Amino acid sequence: MFTTHAAAVAVRPSTGRLRPLGLDEVRITGGFWAGRQRTNAGVTLPHIAHWLEREGWIGNFDLAAAGRLPEGRRGREFSDSEIYKFLEAAAWELGRRPDAALEARFREFVARVAAAQWPDGYLSTAFGRPGQPERWSDLAWGHELYCLGHLFQAAVARERTAPGADDGLIGIARRAADLVCEVFGEDGIQSVCGHAEVEVGLAELSRVTGEQRYLHQARLFIDRRGRHVLPEPEWGRSYFQDDLGIREATVQRGHVVRANYLAAGAVDVAVETGDSGLLATLRGVWDRTIARRTHLTGGQGSHFQDEAFGEDWELPPDRAYSETCASIASIMFSWRLLLATGGGGYADLIERTLFNVVATAVSHDGDRFFYTNTLHRRVPGEMPDPESASPRAFSSLRAPWFEVSCCPPNIARTLASLAGLLTTVDDDGLQLHQFATCSIATSLADGTPVALDVETAYPETGTVTVRVREAATRPWTLSLRVPAWAGGATLRHLTAAGELRTTTVSGPVAQLTAAFEAGDVVELDLPMAATFLRADPRVDALRGCVAVQRGPLVFCAERPAGAGDELDRLVVDTGVEPSYSDGRVVVSARWLQRADSAWPYQTGGSVATVAGEPFALIPYVDWGHSGLCTMRVWLPEG
Amino acid sequence: MFTTHAAAVAVRPSTGRLRPLGLDEVRITGGFWAGRQRTNAGVTLPHIAHWLEREGWIGNFDLAAAGRLPEGRRGREFSDSEIYKFLEAAAWELGRRPDAALEARFREFVARVAAAQWPDGYLSTAFGRPGQPERWSDLAWGHELYCLGHLFQAAVARERTAPGADDGLIGIARRAADLVCEVFGEDGIQSVCGHAEVEVGLAELSRVTGEQRYLHQARLFIDRRGRHVLPEPEWGRSYFQDDLGIREATVQRGHVVRANYLAAGAVDVAVETGDSGLLATLRGVWDRTIARRTHLTGGQGSHFQDEAFGEDWELPPDRAYSETCASIASIMFSWRLLLATGGGGYADLIERTLFNVVATAVSHDGDRFFYTNTLHRRVPGEMPDPESASPRAFSSLRAPWFEVSCCPPNIARTLASLAGLLTTVDDDGLQLHQFATCSIATSLADGTPVALDVETAYPETGTVTVRVREAATRPWTLSLRVPAWAGGATLRHLTAAGELRTTTVSGPVAQLTAAFEAGDVVELDLPMAATFLRADPRVDALRGCVAVQRGPLVFCAERPAGAGDELDRLVVDTGVEPSYSDGRVVVSARWLQRADSAWPYQTGGSVATVAGEPFALIPYVDWGHSGLCTMRVWLPEG
Repeated sequence: MFTTHAAAVAVRPSTGRLRPLGLDEVRITGGFWAGRQRTNAGVTLPHIAHWLEREGWIGNFDLAAAGRLPEGRRGREFSDSEIYKFLEAAAWELGRRPDAALEARFREFVARVAAAQWPDGYLSTAFGRPGQPERWSDLAWGHELYCLGHLFQAAVARERTAPGADDGLIGIARRAADLVCEVFGEDGIQSVCGHAEVEVGLAELSRVTGEQRYLHQARLFIDRRGRHVLPEPEWGRSYFQDDLGIREATVQRGHVVRANYLAAGAVDVAVETGDSGLLATLRGVWDRTIARRTHLTGGQGSHFQDEAFGEDWELPPDRAYSETCASIASIMFSWRLLLATGGGGYADLIERTLFNVVATAVSHDGDRFFYTNTLHRRVPGEMPDPESASPRAFSSLRAPWFEVSCCPPNIARTLASLAGLLTTVDDDGLQLHQFATCSIATSLADGTPVALDVETAYPETGTVTVRVREAATRPWTLSLRVPAWAGGATLRHLTAAGELRTTTVSGPVAQLTAAFEAGDVVELDLPMAATFLRADPRVDALRGCVAVQRGPLVFCAERPAGAGDELDRLVVDTGVEPSYSDGRVVVSARWLQRADSAWPYQTGGSVATVAGEPFALIPYVDWGHSGLCTMRVWLPEG
Repeated sequence: MFTTHAAAVAVRPSTGRLRPLGLDEVRITGGFWAGRQRTNAGVTLPHIAHWLEREGWIGNFDLAAAGRLPEGRRGREFSDSEIYKFLEAAAWELGRRPDAALEARFREFVARVAAAQWPDGYLSTAFGRPGQPERWSDLAWGHELYCLGHLFQAAVARERTAPGADDGLIGIARRAADLVCEVFGEDGIQSVCGHAEVEVGLAELSRVTGEQRYLHQARLFIDRRGRHVLPEPEWGRSYFQDDLGIREATVQRGHVVRANYLAAGAVDVAVETGDSGLLATLRGVWDRTIARRTHLTGGQGSHFQDEAFGEDWELPPDRAYSETCASIASIMFSWRLLLATGGGGYADLIERTLFNVVATAVSHDGDRFFYTNTLHRRVPGEMPDPESASPRAFSSLRAPWFEVSCCPPNIARTLASLAGLLTTVDDDGLQLHQFATCSIATSLADGTPVALDVETAYPETGTVTVRVREAATRPWTLSLRVPAWAGGATLRHLTAAGELRTTTVSGPVAQLTAAFEAGDVVELDLPMAATFLRADPRVDALRGCVAVQRGPLVFCAERPAGAGDELDRLVVDTGVEPSYSDGRVVVSARWLQRADSAWPYQTGGSVATVAGEPFALIPYVDWGHSGLCTMRVWLPEG
């Protein structure tokens, strides 16, 4: 347990096992993620702002203020939320690094939003005016509360990174939240939003403002779900998570983004209300979802139709929906459980998801995006039009924008606030959950000051070096996560006095308790061999296949568009171990010899292959950067 | 080539390799399909009529006539088509067997439809009145021409089974078709209907009326498609088959029902206009579609989102969409190619599809239906509400009706006209394509009279006995299909004079040329061993699995809802041959021993199983008849 700390943290529970550190306490200073953050700030945020203007989504607020809605309104019913997610991303980015142009843009957008708010706090460009549907008239599909949830998260980010800023955003959020409590309170409309999000927004807004009724309203929304308060859609009530009460569920189901936002909000409510039963239920839900409904990349979702989880073991690589936003929502859920409980595989999943979905979904250049993240692309598809919003999931190349463009600003807010996911503290010490070159200056939960520099070429190498810059003399514990994929690690402690101690670690955490001194160096060495992985045999779609992982990175086979059906014929000889060099994993390839039968189902069983040249796999995070292509993560074993 | 014959045939090309026989020439008199036809007449047709009334879909025509649309209109924009498909089914049924009540119902429905037709021939309850969208204002999604295509098919069926009937249906159809030609002709609207169907309807209406301009209009629609005349939907132009011209396509793609209706119409146009190039293209399309995009059951479609074909080799059993209507449309396509070309696997696919999709999609009792026909159901789902239209694809039990209820009347018209798919004639003789107990009385294409009785317990046994009742003395050829799954057959000819000749057949057809006499008996014996089948190794979703087929029937494992995850753990020991007895195929079962890992992807590869009792598979056509259940066709091999 710890006392609340006034840092710029992405999530700030008032209680829990671990205290998160703020962007003012941890800075990513180099390596993989520093590059991603630079691109996010320099390219992605301006790109998003450009498209928000171009598509008229921010312009909708101007039209609202000018009384010119609904005629000119553009975009889907949830387009307001993209402005709020942009504001949240900008707030984190400004907390990370001052930027006058971004600050100006932030204030300009806030002012345009403010002008569209009704005196009673209501805020939506899609509802409530003459010619528009009435307020709250379509809770199932209207996304009004969903949008407000993102507004609240933006205001929370701003308040934490620039407390007392005079831009007015926190006031906009409070007025809207007050209205929500009034309209949907104990005696109000007994329903919920079809797309969860307001719950987590209200809980965090409660934390930042101290308003208990926001938390109470979040709990009401959480508890109402599962009582069939929404109309049943064609594919069942699970779509809205309205099939089962939050306390009755045993696994995530339905629309994945909705499910994970809801679960994140439910953890917040459980933590803030001391509801240990609910917290235990949510941990069980997480466990089974990871054991049975999550792709190798950490991505989730197997249905295109309803953007939903499949059933247990239904994890088709070629129809992996794995929406980018779903993974971001999954990180929100995992991170909250990590803070609340201190362990349990949450940081492993966050790492897997960050590298193999979040970092993969945005191009290296920062201005192209995947909405879905398939594990197998059979046909190259078409080049997305650089000048227009794309469909979501039909090319091997990333697109500049989507008609439903939730993913780009979601990536931006995640990358801008990423430093907050690296490390935590408690009374006993400091925990390093994610490995990035960074600078840490904080105090343990009891006030002991600690300053560290972390240096690593991760995930290219598995060596993580922690240099102690400042530490009180009392002993404390430095904990470094040992990912489950590593199976173990070596920990070295070279004291400032020149003494070297080496230990072998087998569990999920490498711990070192010492009265660290400035100049002490702690080095974690993770084994980084490329290995073949096989799926639980109940995952039907992956039977007889292997995937290759090295460190946290999943690898894949990619062939340019002109290569025809080569990836349909590739078979991996797993008798030869994969070998890594220079960013590639080389496997022993065989090629299927197969002409079409008139009918593809026959009594014979033998599969003829011929040996080929060694085949080089690339990191999945790098796929789709060399033109239209085919790609697969899971490769038949032969 | 043959001269046109005035029989009650389901499809009547003016030319082609084979002449189809009409319902007045072939009657199914016993066995599997006779039972299905009895149920279709006695239960399914009244059931459909009941729901058409109950849902208000026929009532829409009354409202139209009374000037009370659009306020009271019920059902989707294409609901008119269900009335027309019911009329078509009723027409075939009345051609098969007089039924005063059905005749009265038929005439009543026609009169109600007639009252809604505009003086200029326009007919739709969803468009064209004040308060409704304008005529032809939404060709992509409005289904106006699609509905008319089904109207034309109904009128064709009636005209062929009751030529000159005074019910007025043919006049309604002609007036509507005339309007279509006027509005969409050479100088008319240069577009097509988003859902193909009017093409095949117009071509057949041209055949029945002799109006060449209907055929010409069908050709215009066929040729316009692929010129991007429709807006591009989210999942691409292939959805409407508007991505490629009909002459450029190499495989079926997009929405499966649309694709197959279009292809059927294109065969009609190719045949009637002597376009051998188009016909060759369509044969190639069929070949590749069967080799790479068709499920073991004959079902087609792998995407729920857009009800579409997947890419080559994308055939997931657990997300097999395999819409019932798609299979009926596939039969329409195959049958036309069979008539045009005389061979090529078409009858094999028709048989497979009839048993494993059409007969499977309707309950044995005739009043419950599957909209989709999955090959693997992981969870039982919920009991469909007997009192309301169901969602389409979310239970292991058949539903009485659907909000989109295209499938039930489509099954009904197929079963009512089924006798027409059994056999054909040409100058040289008679071809038996499908095996059913039936009575045939016809003449060969040159006028030689032939009468035969066919008797068989197929598909329970593989013996098909043909008794010659009447035959001219000149030699002619009796051809019996030998399904590819049989690999060969034995043919016996016992002459009336007592002579027995036995031959072994290895090709796709057993042929016997003789001057048959009344009393001659020809007997085909097909080997009926249950066998394990494996998929082409490029079908990723079926790797490491076997299915069992015996005769034309695909088998499956089914477990009642309470059996938990048993079907996730079943592994078949294919070292032991499957054995058939009493309607069941018994396989040697092993059971996976597996506890969940926290993370389902691991370096280990061995899969532990323990031997179990022999496991009995049931015919897929019988699944879902014993309460909520799990089911799978493809079983892991171990």
